[in-house]
This record gives sequence, structure tokens and C-alpha cells, in this order.
Amino acid sequence: MSLEAVNVHPLSGYSFIERESQPEEDNSVTARLKRLEDQYAESGIRRSVEAIMLVNVHDFPHVLVLQVANAFYKLPGGYLDPVESDSSGLITRLNEQLGVPFTPSLIHAGGDWKVGDLLGTWWRPNYDTFYYPYIPAHISQPKECKKLYLVELPPNKTFAVPVNMKLHAIPVYEFYDNAARYGPQFAGIPYILSKYGIYHQLPAETEAHGGKR
Amino acid sequence: MSLEAVNVHPLSGYSFIERESQPEEDNSVTARLKRLEDQYAESGIRRSVEAIMLVNVHDFPHVLVLQVANAFYKLPGGYLDPVESDSSGLITRLNEQLGVPFTPSLIHAGGDWKVGDLLGTWWRPNYDTFYYPYIPAHISQPKECKKLYLVELPPNKTFAVPVNMKLHAIPVYEFYDNAARYGPQFAGIPYILSKYGIYHQLPAETEAHGGKR
Repeated sequence: MSLEAVNVHPLSGYSFIERESQPEEDNSVTARLKRLEDQYAESGIRRSVEAIMLVNVHDFPHVLVLQVANAFYKLPGGYLDPVESDSSGLITRLNEQLGVPFTPSLIHAGGDWKVGDLLGTWWRPNYDTFYYPYIPAHISQPKECKKLYLVELPPNKTFAVPVNMKLHAIPVYEFYDNAARYGPQFAGIPYILSKYGIYHQLPAETEAHGGKR
Repeated sequence: MSLEAVNVHPLSGYSFIERESQPEEDNSVTARLKRLEDQYAESGIRRSVEAIMLVNVHDFPHVLVLQVANAFYKLPGGYLDPVESDSSGLITRLNEQLGVPFTPSLIHAGGDWKVGDLLGTWWRPNYDTFYYPYIPAHISQPKECKKLYLVELPPNKTFAVPVNMKLHAIPVYEFYDNAARYGPQFAGIPYILSKYGIYHQLPAETEAHGGKR
């Protein structure tokens, strides 16, 4: 069985402009957890979606990562309204965060982001800041389910990055065994991408062949 | 998009008998690396396949793991002849390791192991013991490609475990953030399984629904 191909294009095909600042919705961890709790009471588990978007730099796959205020890193995405589906909701969040404002609705409807495979899921069991890549035992009502999707990019595109953020392209290998720097969710990225044929020079011999060479 | 369902059955449906000892092929790390080198010279990159087989214990998914001589852990599987395909080769390795000897060839042909999704890939760039979940930069001829497949089990089955090994069912959460004990390949398992709906009580609200509740 062959490694599934994913189109990954050179970073040089993309351009980056600024858009308005997008401050965090809450000023403190306490406020953020309070909002999670209020939302849970109103509409149940929070559903979040995040995008893993790959670009090639020096022939090596990199992940597009937002850095907020020179501090923490996050994947593009966000949480959904209860009525939004994962894939159209994720496209809406991406356009809100990184889309060029005032472009035609055709593009905003998702003409150029392509939501692909579900790669992984993170669960938040309680009203605190911990997530796990499984539902811990004895947890019957997790408070958030965050899904990571592969989002394929076209070869050329303009990203509009909020002025309070930076958009970095970080090598996949940089996250490996590096939860200390990037946190557990980023440290998991190399594993969930490893089944794809995203590397420049896949040895042909990774498939069965007719006889000994 | 819904979490993909996987059939995971209770451990109580399985029984375990003994089969003949299966000592490691090499007595030392040096001998093992020498064989890798010889094989590379003869037939190119080594292709290995391993099985992630899930069972339920107390309603929580566990992974079947072999422990050799009360020492190291490994997933069932092994390496392939160049002419073997991943999936039929994996079934052959599983029958050699854990199949009941002298059972009808129908069963040995794969009547009860079902090779499913490719979950992840590990690359060994050099003739040493390190693997990575990506091909490191500047490596054009990795020496081994190890693929991890989800293997679905029937509800009932007899495993014949070599007398020099133990077959453990280890909870998925036990591997999380636990490379210190199990090594990086096991530590990656929770991530690559996280996209599946393998947990007892998935909250229904993880999908979009028609309106606010």
C-alpha cells in the first residue's frame, strides 16, 4: 500500500499582507475558562477545528503556524457554532483569520482552501487547560473536542495576517520530541503526518516489487 | 465529519495458548545492524510492517504488545521480503508470530486478521538504532521504512504466543507522553489513533446539529 500523496507547494508561491488586529477574545485564563463553562451550559461540548497547512521550504515540509503577540503558537482555526459543519466552519475560520478582506464571496466560500483528512483529535475533559489525544477513563462529558484537519493549499495564494500575529512556516521535524517548546499538540504533528508521502525523495522501494534487484 | 468507527471487541473474547519459542534472529545490536547492511546491499531499503490491534478492557481501548524475554516491547509484525505486499506480508508475519500452528490455511490466509488503515511510518536513515516519523533532511537513502497498520480483530480468536514472549494489552493512555518508558514509537500511538471513534461514550454533540439546544 502506497504512501498517500499530498500536494505540498513551495512557500515562494505565497504572499503575505497585513490585516486588522485580532486580539484574543479573553484577557485571562480565568475568563477563557468561564466562557467555556457558559458555552457548555448553553450548547454542550465545544467543537473546535484547526488546520494543518503544509508548504515546502528547501524541499522539506513545513507547517503554517500563527504566533500571537510574539508569545504562544497556535494553529489557524477556532471553535464552531453548533450548527456549523467541521469543514465549512473551518473554512470560515480560516477566512476570518487569514483571508484577504473584501475579496469575492466565491473565494471566501472555500475556493482555495481544501479541507482534507481528519488527522487527529484532542479532548478537553474538564474546565481547565489540559487536552489529551483520547478521552480519559471515567470522563463521560468532555468539555471540548478539537479536530485537526489537513488543509491543502493551492500553489499560489495571498494570506492576510492580523497585525498582532506572525505566520511562521515551521519544519515538521522541529516539532518532533519537542513538547517542551511547542506543547503536546504541536509535538503530535509529526506522527499524524507520517503516513503521507510528503517527503521530497521517497525511495521507490517502499512498495513491493517483482523480484530481487 | 464524523469520527471513523473501528470495531474494538472485549479482551474476554480472546484466548491465549503457547507456541514454540521464537528467539531474536540476532544476538547483538552489532549483528542486527550488520544484517540490515547486508540486506540493503542485496535488495535496497528494508520494508517493515507492524500491527496495531485494539481490544477493550473495562471499556477502554488497549493495544496488544509483545514483550520479549521480560525485557523490551515490540508490536507484532516484522520485515518483508521484497516481493511481499504490505498487507499480505503483515498477515504472514502475524500468523508466524501469533497464529495457532497447524490450523487450516484458510485462516492462515488472513480469514481473521483484517489489515486496515496505514496509521504512521517510521524511517531509519542510517545503520543505527534510530527511527524518525519523517525522512530527515539530507537523507536520500533511508535504510528502513516501517509502516504501522491498524489491524482489526474478529470478536473471538485464539492467539498462540511464543513461550519466550508475553502478549500484553496496554491502555492507549499509558503510552501518552511516555517515550521514557516505551520509546518514541509507542509514545506516538495515542496521536495516530486519536482520529478514530474508539472511545466508549462519544458525545453525540461532536457533530453539527440543527439548532441550539
